[in-house]
Amino acid sequence: MPASSPLPNPLIAAMSAYAPGEQPQGEGWVKLNTNENPYPPSAQVVQALQEAVGVKSANFRLYPSPDSAPVREAVSHLHGLPASQVVVGNGSDDILNLLIRAYAGPGRAVGMLDPSYSLYTVLAAAQGAPLVKVPLQADGSWSAEAIAQSGATVFFLTNPNAPLGFVFAASQVALLAERFAGLLVVDEAYADFAGVDCVALVKSHPNVVVTRTLSKAYALAGLRVGYALCPVGVAEILHRVRDSYNLDRLAQVAAVAALQDKTWLKVTVGKVCATRSLVGQRLQSLGWKVNPAAGNFIFAEPRSRTREPSLATAADAFEFLRARKILVRRFPHHPLTATGLRISVGTEAEMQAFLAAAEAWSQG
Amino acid sequence: MPASSPLPNPLIAAMSAYAPGEQPQGEGWVKLNTNENPYPPSAQVVQALQEAVGVKSANFRLYPSPDSAPVREAVSHLHGLPASQVVVGNGSDDILNLLIRAYAGPGRAVGMLDPSYSLYTVLAAAQGAPLVKVPLQADGSWSAEAIAQSGATVFFLTNPNAPLGFVFAASQVALLAERFAGLLVVDEAYADFAGVDCVALVKSHPNVVVTRTLSKAYALAGLRVGYALCPVGVAEILHRVRDSYNLDRLAQVAAVAALQDKTWLKVTVGKVCATRSLVGQRLQSLGWKVNPAAGNFIFAEPRSRTREPSLATAADAFEFLRARKILVRRFPHHPLTATGLRISVGTEAEMQAFLAAAEAWSQG
Repeated sequence: MPASSPLPNPLIAAMSAYAPGEQPQGEGWVKLNTNENPYPPSAQVVQALQEAVGVKSANFRLYPSPDSAPVREAVSHLHGLPASQVVVGNGSDDILNLLIRAYAGPGRAVGMLDPSYSLYTVLAAAQGAPLVKVPLQADGSWSAEAIAQSGATVFFLTNPNAPLGFVFAASQVALLAERFAGLLVVDEAYADFAGVDCVALVKSHPNVVVTRTLSKAYALAGLRVGYALCPVGVAEILHRVRDSYNLDRLAQVAAVAALQDKTWLKVTVGKVCATRSLVGQRLQSLGWKVNPAAGNFIFAEPRSRTREPSLATAADAFEFLRARKILVRRFPHHPLTATGLRISVGTEAEMQAFLAAAEAWSQG
Repeated sequence: MPASSPLPNPLIAAMSAYAPGEQPQGEGWVKLNTNENPYPPSAQVVQALQEAVGVKSANFRLYPSPDSAPVREAVSHLHGLPASQVVVGNGSDDILNLLIRAYAGPGRAVGMLDPSYSLYTVLAAAQGAPLVKVPLQADGSWSAEAIAQSGATVFFLTNPNAPLGFVFAASQVALLAERFAGLLVVDEAYADFAGVDCVALVKSHPNVVVTRTLSKAYALAGLRVGYALCPVGVAEILHRVRDSYNLDRLAQVAAVAALQDKTWLKVTVGKVCATRSLVGQRLQSLGWKVNPAAGNFIFAEPRSRTREPSLATAADAFEFLRARKILVRRFPHHPLTATGLRISVGTEAEMQAFLAAAEAWSQG
C-alpha cells in the first residue's frame, strides 16, 4: 500500500479547476453576476415537468434516451438542420469539452479571443492542448489573419463576446471561416439577445460548429442543457467522447418544452433587451463608459465624481455594490476588463436597485 | 475554407463510441437487458420533485449548486465520510471518466478485470491511456499479484463483477490494495444487491476509491446520479476535471430524497434479491448453468434438451426470447461470456414470463 494517494497525471497536477461565479447564500441578494435570466422559464416547461413527475415518475427507473433524441428533434425543427447534425450536452460547457477532447490535444492547439470565456483555458489544460490567444481590441475588432495564422486546430469565437459584450456579424465570421483551416466553433451562448447568429454557416461551411445553451435566453441554467450544430460528420465524432447518457429524463423534457415555446422566448428576451438599453443609457449619463451590449449583460467602466476608471475604481464600485447586497462580476486579470464590471441584466426592479446604488457611488 | 471537416485527433479517429444496451421502442417489452430496477423510485423522490417543480420552478433559471453540495451532504451522512471526500457525477460513468482523465493517460495505463465493464476501454482509448486486462477466471478468482504487477496507474475492480455476477470480499480487496501501488477503484454499481462493500477501505487506504450509482438500487437510471468516495486529497483532483455544474437541480433534489429513504431501498433490494434467488433455482432446474449472482442480474448459460452451451446456443436462446418480446443481453466477444446470457432481475411477473419462455426454449 502506498503511504499516500497516488499522484494525478502531470497535466492535472499542474492545473486548477474553473472557478464558477459566486452563488451567494441567504436571502435578499440582487444577483447580477452569472448572467442568469431574471425571468422564470416558460410555463410550458413547468407543465411538461409536472406531467413527467406526476404521471411518468415510474419511468425514472429507466435510462433516458442516450442521445437525447427528442431534444435533437426539437433543435432540428428550430434551426432547420437534420437531427443527425445536432449533439446535445449537459450544458454547453459539456459540448465545449467534447469539442476540445475530440479535436485538440498535445500538438493540436486551442485558440480563443482574449479576453473571452476562461473555461476554454481550463479545458485545454486538462487535455494537454497548447493555448493560443488572439487579442480582442478595445473597439471590439480582431484580426482574421491572426486567427488564420494562429496554428490552432480548434478556435473558439465567443459571439457575442463575453465579458465585453461585442457582437460580430455573420459575414465577418464567414470570412474568417474561409481563411481558417481548423474547426471554427462559434460559441453562441448569448446569441438570442443579439439578434445575430451564424447558424447558416454550419450549413455552408464544413469547418463551422455553432454551440448554444438553454441557460441564458431559455432561463434553464438549473437544468443544464446545451447543444452543438455540426457539419455532417462532426456530430458522429463528438458522440464518441460523449457520455452515453449525458442528459437525464427531466432535462430532456424541459428542453423540448422550452425550445417549442417561441413566444415566451421572444417576450422575455425582449424585456431583457429593453432593460439592457435603459440601464446602458443611465450608466452613460452617470459618466460610466458603457460597451455596446449584445448579450444579457452590460460591461461598463465605473467613473465617479472623484475617481477615474482604474482597477482600484472598479474594485471600489464592486465592493460598494456588494455591501448593498448587489452582486456583479469583476475580471481583474486582463487590461481590457480590469477597469470594468460585468453586470447581468436583471428585472426592472433589480436594475432600479442597482442604478440607485451606482448613482450613489458615482456621486461619492 | 477546407474542402471537408477537419479531422479529429488521432486517438478519437481510432476509437468507437460505447454502445449502450438497446432501448426498445414500442410497448409490451419485458426489458431485462440493462439492469434497471424493476420497481419505481421512492415516493419521497416523487414528492420532492413535485415540490421542486410546483413551488420552486422559478429557480430553474439559476445555476445549481456547482459541487452538488446537498447530495454530498446526504452521501456523507449515509457512509460516515466527510462531504469533502465525496464527488458527485452525472451517473457513475461521469465519475469513471473523471478518474481516467485525472489519473491515466499516455504512459499511465488503465487496468481492469477481463471481462468486466467495457466502458473502461472506451474511456481509456479517448484518453490515450494503455489498457491492461487481468483475466477473471471462470470460478470468479483473479490474481492480486497479476494486478500488482500490471503496471496500471488506475485499476478498476468491478465489484460485484458485471456481467458475470461474482462478488469479491472486502478482505480480499484490502489485500489487493496493500499490494497495488496505483489507484484502486472499486466500482460498486451493484453493491447494494450484494450485501458486501469496500467503503471502509476508503477510510483506511489512501489508494482506494469507491464509486456508486443511483441507477440500479435506487431506481434512478433516468436521472443520472453517481458518486465517488475518495481518500483525502483525491476529491480535489477530480473536481479539477469535473464540469462546473455537472448535476442539474432536479437530479440533485431526487438524489437527496432517494439517499434518505433507507426503507424503500431495503424493501426493493430485498424483493430483487428474493426474485433473483428463485429465478436462479428455476434456471438450474432447467439445466442452465447459473453463476453466483451478487448484482441485480443473473448470468447463465442456456442449455436445452438438444443443445449444449455454446455461442450458437446462447444466440438461439436470445433470439427465441427476443421473438417473444423478452430482451436480455449477450456479450459474445469473450470466452467466459460468449456462451451465456445476462438477465436483469425484473418484477415477479416479468420473471414468470421470462421463465416460461426459457422453459419452452429448453424443451425445444
